[in-house]
Amino acid sequence: MPGLPKHLVIFQPSGRRGEVPEGTPLLDAARDLGVEIESICGGQQTCGKCKVLVEEGEFQKYGIRSSSDHLSPTGETERAYWERRKHGDSRYRLSCAACVQGPLVITVPEESQARKQIIRKSATERVIEMDPAVRQYYTNVTPSTLGDERGDWELLQAALRDRFGLTGLRIDLPTLQTLQDVQRAGKWGVTASVWNDQEVIRVQPGYAEGAYGLAVDIGTTTVVAHLCDLRTGAVLATEAMMNPQVPFGEDILSRISYAQTNKDGLARMNGTIVDGLNKLATRATRRADLVPDDISDVVLVGNTVMHHIVLGVSPVHIGGSPFTLATYDPVNVKARDLGLTAINQGAWVHVLPCEAGYVGADNVAVLLAEEPHRQDDVVLVIDIGTNGEILLGNKEHLLSASSPTGPAFEGAQITHGMRAAPGAVERVRIDPKTLIPRFRVIGDERWSDEMPPGEIQAAGICGSGIIEVVAELFARGIVLPSGKFNLATPSPNFRPNERVGEYVLATADQTSTGHEIVITQNDIRAVQLAKAALYAGAKLLMAHRGVDRVNRVILAGAFGSYISKEQAMLIGLFPDCDLDKVYAVGNAAGDGARIALLNRAKRNEAREAARWVEYVETAVEMEFQDEFVAALNFPHTRDHFPHLDGLLPPASLSQPSTDDREARRRARKARVRIKSS
Amino acid sequence: MPGLPKHLVIFQPSGRRGEVPEGTPLLDAARDLGVEIESICGGQQTCGKCKVLVEEGEFQKYGIRSSSDHLSPTGETERAYWERRKHGDSRYRLSCAACVQGPLVITVPEESQARKQIIRKSATERVIEMDPAVRQYYTNVTPSTLGDERGDWELLQAALRDRFGLTGLRIDLPTLQTLQDVQRAGKWGVTASVWNDQEVIRVQPGYAEGAYGLAVDIGTTTVVAHLCDLRTGAVLATEAMMNPQVPFGEDILSRISYAQTNKDGLARMNGTIVDGLNKLATRATRRADLVPDDISDVVLVGNTVMHHIVLGVSPVHIGGSPFTLATYDPVNVKARDLGLTAINQGAWVHVLPCEAGYVGADNVAVLLAEEPHRQDDVVLVIDIGTNGEILLGNKEHLLSASSPTGPAFEGAQITHGMRAAPGAVERVRIDPKTLIPRFRVIGDERWSDEMPPGEIQAAGICGSGIIEVVAELFARGIVLPSGKFNLATPSPNFRPNERVGEYVLATADQTSTGHEIVITQNDIRAVQLAKAALYAGAKLLMAHRGVDRVNRVILAGAFGSYISKEQAMLIGLFPDCDLDKVYAVGNAAGDGARIALLNRAKRNEAREAARWVEYVETAVEMEFQDEFVAALNFPHTRDHFPHLDGLLPPASLSQPSTDDREARRRARKARVRIKSS
Repeated sequence: MPGLPKHLVIFQPSGRRGEVPEGTPLLDAARDLGVEIESICGGQQTCGKCKVLVEEGEFQKYGIRSSSDHLSPTGETERAYWERRKHGDSRYRLSCAACVQGPLVITVPEESQARKQIIRKSATERVIEMDPAVRQYYTNVTPSTLGDERGDWELLQAALRDRFGLTGLRIDLPTLQTLQDVQRAGKWGVTASVWNDQEVIRVQPGYAEGAYGLAVDIGTTTVVAHLCDLRTGAVLATEAMMNPQVPFGEDILSRISYAQTNKDGLARMNGTIVDGLNKLATRATRRADLVPDDISDVVLVGNTVMHHIVLGVSPVHIGGSPFTLATYDPVNVKARDLGLTAINQGAWVHVLPCEAGYVGADNVAVLLAEEPHRQDDVVLVIDIGTNGEILLGNKEHLLSASSPTGPAFEGAQITHGMRAAPGAVERVRIDPKTLIPRFRVIGDERWSDEMPPGEIQAAGICGSGIIEVVAELFARGIVLPSGKFNLATPSPNFRPNERVGEYVLATADQTSTGHEIVITQNDIRAVQLAKAALYAGAKLLMAHRGVDRVNRVILAGAFGSYISKEQAMLIGLFPDCDLDKVYAVGNAAGDGARIALLNRAKRNEAREAARWVEYVETAVEMEFQDEFVAALNFPHTRDHFPHLDGLLPPASLSQPSTDDREARRRARKARVRIKSS
Repeated sequence: MPGLPKHLVIFQPSGRRGEVPEGTPLLDAARDLGVEIESICGGQQTCGKCKVLVEEGEFQKYGIRSSSDHLSPTGETERAYWERRKHGDSRYRLSCAACVQGPLVITVPEESQARKQIIRKSATERVIEMDPAVRQYYTNVTPSTLGDERGDWELLQAALRDRFGLTGLRIDLPTLQTLQDVQRAGKWGVTASVWNDQEVIRVQPGYAEGAYGLAVDIGTTTVVAHLCDLRTGAVLATEAMMNPQVPFGEDILSRISYAQTNKDGLARMNGTIVDGLNKLATRATRRADLVPDDISDVVLVGNTVMHHIVLGVSPVHIGGSPFTLATYDPVNVKARDLGLTAINQGAWVHVLPCEAGYVGADNVAVLLAEEPHRQDDVVLVIDIGTNGEILLGNKEHLLSASSPTGPAFEGAQITHGMRAAPGAVERVRIDPKTLIPRFRVIGDERWSDEMPPGEIQAAGICGSGIIEVVAELFARGIVLPSGKFNLATPSPNFRPNERVGEYVLATADQTSTGHEIVITQNDIRAVQLAKAALYAGAKLLMAHRGVDRVNRVILAGAFGSYISKEQAMLIGLFPDCDLDKVYAVGNAAGDGARIALLNRAKRNEAREAARWVEYVETAVEMEFQDEFVAALNFPHTRDHFPHLDGLLPPASLSQPSTDDREARRRARKARVRIKSS
């Protein structure tokens, strides 16, 4: 309306301001000025998400006086809202109801701003705009009358179109089945959960608040699920479990082989992981005091083999050249078609895209979390898992590769290895003088030498513990650069038996099993193979990218507690980098899954990035095999580690031995074994 | 290419002709000239569907000479095709391979034209253009190579886009699960079934032909399924069964009541009908020598209560004013979400829209089959079933109504009633002199008086038999205009027992049960109530439409053999009309379901027509109740029926009696009973 007076309105804490025509609701004014204020009920004065605080007084900085009198009076509906909540502070108003009638300074409280979510509080903190695929809309529906040939669904469509501008909606069958009862139970007020502005997947009577999603990283060895609030982004519960497919094979190649050699192999592996996901969902909802129906969105990530198996697609064609997937594209599929029963039956599952035969949706999730594709710095991202995946590059050119790490870093193939769970040894120190160890287990803040042996209850060693113990053994000279035990080690914990030796990490009285926890020559070998695969993969990508050094190293992995970057560098898990440019970020794939859960634009970004990343096939590169063999030894450069003393014998590269042949075999076997059978 | 010579090409039998540039494949020339020629393989010279005959000789009419030399020579692929089929006639060519090089007269054989389907061979013959929702596309896929990051699905998408212009496709999960094996089994030749140009719902290795669909009419009492070839439109099998919900209630109101009063009532009724549909699909595919996977599309119709129950939606809200449906819109739903397991798991089910609370998708199907909305004539369409539905009007204004007919015309609520199945009496004649009946049963061409009693094996009376026997009883004076037996009837088959009398239609030795088949006073009453409901509904619509007479009457019904229009008019089932303007068309709802199965544009037409038809609510019209009561008697106008002799007593309208009160109650109960409980 021309001629209508305008008033200066300033929103805090952003400081955004503008002249607003008299009579404009504060919520609209905020949106026009780019200030995000929450609202679920769409201006019905029901949800209270849009509440704001009116600052009273003179604001000389702006030359105005702000007052609650400069807003339209509180009406009956709004007053009823505040009374229900016993809220006495009259400076608070619902911004959907209060209209501008004079100059104002408005503070938007944090809970009303809640449109951003901090994914990780660390050096690589990520702030994510909340834009989930599933949103709730509360609306009133005008009931039909005699002679009005519109059904409940047509009425709801009209209401969602008129109030929220949602058009072309469809409704999922299970939701249609409940719609009539729900609309009547809610006295024609209904909360609809809408997926991607396309489909109504849930209806609840009256005003209902609470849409939740599950972000799941299906690792070869470990499965982690985060239950998130789709409105605030908060993580309400995180649940992890051993991948129940492990009995069918410890790494992706043995899973492929199992599918190939057993008629019902795929069905069995698919059944166990679906069952596992249902268990994780059930546990997470219980922990958060929710019910399965509340989970209305899911994002899944995993390596290509996990990706195929959970979708019920055979992984056997990944096993033979040219290592073709059934699809690289992102997949949207109904939860019920996957057999996910412990969540809302209308929910969709979004599976992130894959990059290449051995670089899957989990690596795309790492990419979303770490964003090397948006950076100037050349970054090396190592995702440590049973199938290691590596990203190298920056916004100009990004390479990816897969590395057959083996499950050592997840505690498997290690004599006393275990998943990162209470009782697992996660930190280790070996005294330089006595060569006696002390350690810490998950679930206890104390070191083993600070408590009575009977209270320690160590159960095994998890991935981060394995890296630490091997690094310490090497640093103390108990293990030689070749990886062999120094049989002359003068430690009460070292037993030079059977020509190879073993090191006792925990004595029988310190464990929950009553048996010693020992590190064997084979365990050290498994760590060597794993770290060499990662190191060689990184070197190969650096050669492809034409760089000698990277600006930053990011160590990711879902194998439990954060990896110690010093110890990782000590054993040579990644090429040289300034230690303060190395970041251990934990489960980046899980973070990326959460990002895709909270922001659907990120799903599109993932699709584009997955196609843009250049994949380097390590299996066909002779260079990789040479690098791999060369990287088996522990580093000779002790300059970084002033605490290493003169215990060690002079470093010498051993000739290719049986071990090296094993390494070469391993570097090749990924494809050959499957192809030939 | 400018300057390229053009040649006259004439296609027979349509006579379409045009100048075609040299080098144009005949298939393209035909399409440019509007001649529909079949092709499944898309020009791969594989399917042979596009074969044409080249006419040889001078065609003075057109001033040209036509010769097979005026086509490009037969190449190796085409030659191989003809040799595989041992086809010696060299005048036949594949129109996708043969290119124009001179003037031509081409005959398109009927099998290559097959793009139209005659739905019904009768006065109301309907020719339907074939445009099914599911089409098969055969294509070769270029396999991926090392370093080519495209999955099987991306490869298939590219092939379907490049060859057939299909874009934006998605793939159903069960199909994705089989894709890799199928593409390899077919040596990278694959036949994809695509639903609505949107979704790949089936893949088969190599060139595969055969997409089939099921058109189902779910009646309150009878369920009929037609298995159709989606390429030719041919009906390969028709299977019918008693609706297995009958034990839960004989009419829609008792089904609603069952759902309302039993906690698992909906689930049980839904389970039995889904089970029934699976049985019909299994029987039909067996009869046609197909497998369940071959059924890749389904169209369902039914009245609103059947519609809701099969979708798993409670019908209880239909039972109370304002009689609101969950949805009136057409519904597309995955067969597996409905529990239809005896068909392809990727198939969609299309459910036609509804018109009003008691006028369902079956009436919309009748409308598709009879097309009153496209005609100048004012047509009355009566769909006789347990819930009668009536259409009246023309292309300017069309009205619909529902009539609580009761199941009498489907053989239910009749002492010896049965479904139209072998052994059911379907035709009846009573000798005017002796008043002894003769009859015919379904499955035998002979009349009962032409065969030994022991061979007759009558089991009961079906709907058309009931109408015939009541009409004959009335015509012979055995039943009076009031519907009461004439207790003075001098027939050996009439027994005036218990003050009401009964008429023996079949003696014990004529039946398969060894018991007589009799017509009781209650049976006649049931027919009176049913015909009065239809008559009154028709009269009400005529009053609304402002017409005294209709130009045409169409009698439809799924209750078995065709109704006898003479006998129907004799008992007063519909208002007066010239008998040669009355058509008995059988299961028009089933025909309409087939039409929607064969042509997807008809689904859109159905949606628009369903919204356009004006519904008249009979339950709230006092006029309907008066008409209903007045229509209970049999007609007094004997002028149409010269074969009626002087047997009958003078016609007189009886005063409202117990029967009339029952009729009034019945006219109201539809809504009242449910509403009040």
